[in-house]
Amino acid sequence: MARWVKKRPDVRRNELLDSAQALFFSKGYEATTVADIMKGAGVSKGGFYHHFSAKEDLLEALGERLAAETVVQLRPILDNEGLNAVTRMNAVLAQARRFKVEDAAAIRAAFDTVFKPENIVLYHRLNRAVGEVMLPLFIEILRQGKSEGEFRIDDPATTAEIILQMGTSTHDAVARAIEASGTPQVEQAAVALDERLRQQGIAIDRILGLPDGTIVFSEPGFSKAVMTVPMSDKN
Amino acid sequence: MARWVKKRPDVRRNELLDSAQALFFSKGYEATTVADIMKGAGVSKGGFYHHFSAKEDLLEALGERLAAETVVQLRPILDNEGLNAVTRMNAVLAQARRFKVEDAAAIRAAFDTVFKPENIVLYHRLNRAVGEVMLPLFIEILRQGKSEGEFRIDDPATTAEIILQMGTSTHDAVARAIEASGTPQVEQAAVALDERLRQQGIAIDRILGLPDGTIVFSEPGFSKAVMTVPMSDKN
Repeated sequence: MARWVKKRPDVRRNELLDSAQALFFSKGYEATTVADIMKGAGVSKGGFYHHFSAKEDLLEALGERLAAETVVQLRPILDNEGLNAVTRMNAVLAQARRFKVEDAAAIRAAFDTVFKPENIVLYHRLNRAVGEVMLPLFIEILRQGKSEGEFRIDDPATTAEIILQMGTSTHDAVARAIEASGTPQVEQAAVALDERLRQQGIAIDRILGLPDGTIVFSEPGFSKAVMTVPMSDKN
Repeated sequence: MARWVKKRPDVRRNELLDSAQALFFSKGYEATTVADIMKGAGVSKGGFYHHFSAKEDLLEALGERLAAETVVQLRPILDNEGLNAVTRMNAVLAQARRFKVEDAAAIRAAFDTVFKPENIVLYHRLNRAVGEVMLPLFIEILRQGKSEGEFRIDDPATTAEIILQMGTSTHDAVARAIEASGTPQVEQAAVALDERLRQQGIAIDRILGLPDGTIVFSEPGFSKAVMTVPMSDKN
């Protein structure tokens, strides 16, 4: 019997993702090279290119994996039978905001880069990958809201698709806030982003047929908490 | 005095776009090469690469130019002082649908390609370029609707951004209809797309604070008219 066992491809893939995550979160996406990632995972060039064709692919796969982990962490909220759909949706959004604030430095080190104008393509790839993971969760809540007679919607799957995709309309507002971070304009930019997110929440309320302000998509101060987190100077 | 006058760069650029448009509309985007486009415009390789770096750039610039031409053609509707905002918006959407049905074969030959899964990036580039051209027109109508007290919206610019960007949520439904075209499933796919577009219209109504069905985003039969147009077999 061989002394070593060849690792299964998905194990290798996850090790590459672990390495990428650790590096993107600490050094930042830009400062990390594919060579760093291979070294961190102890994977050869051939092994790397078997799974990914570029650093961009890793960022997309990482976004997908983090979204899937988030869904697992949100499971208790989804399984809590005592919640109506509005309360459940707001609990999910509040928990997602909490994760973002807690991990702001790491998330921003890895993902701010997708908001640069030259990376709009990467942004959309990431958004699509994350959206596909989050979609079933949103459909589930929308179905409940419809069956409770609270959400005035037709087809929960279509409405979930519309609401998730509508998120990309905040791209420019987020990009402006990121650009202002570390400058004296950051406070003003964070207030502008909070206001933009508030309007996004109202658009969601309206699409669901709810009174304005029912869905708490963001809160005053959220943007500031995320934007003013101290970042590594490598970014 | 020289016998010839060097053409201004934007003239060359437009000649390249004219050539690309003629070829994309007749042969289709996929079947057209950069060499064909240069030949059609009588422009050298150096001249081409001064303006564009790839065929994708031409498609994006073409989308932008067609959107700008559409805005010019919509000007009479925008300048007609007798229209309230709802009537104006519906007239704009009806005219846009008319253009699409009239030029369906040409538009599909050029643009169907962006709905292929591997071209999602090109789709978003095109969507963004066209959206930036259309945005001022939508802001203008939303401002009117707000000042008339009809549109229950906060900031017309933000709402216009949300509505335009929300359009990308129809991507998969359109892609499915394109895939079915030329097959026996096309009728069914066209009906599904009509229904999807109707729901999109209701989302717009809701965001504007209007009763469902006020904004006529599409009409039954529209998708069929666009999807069943005879296409060149080069695509």
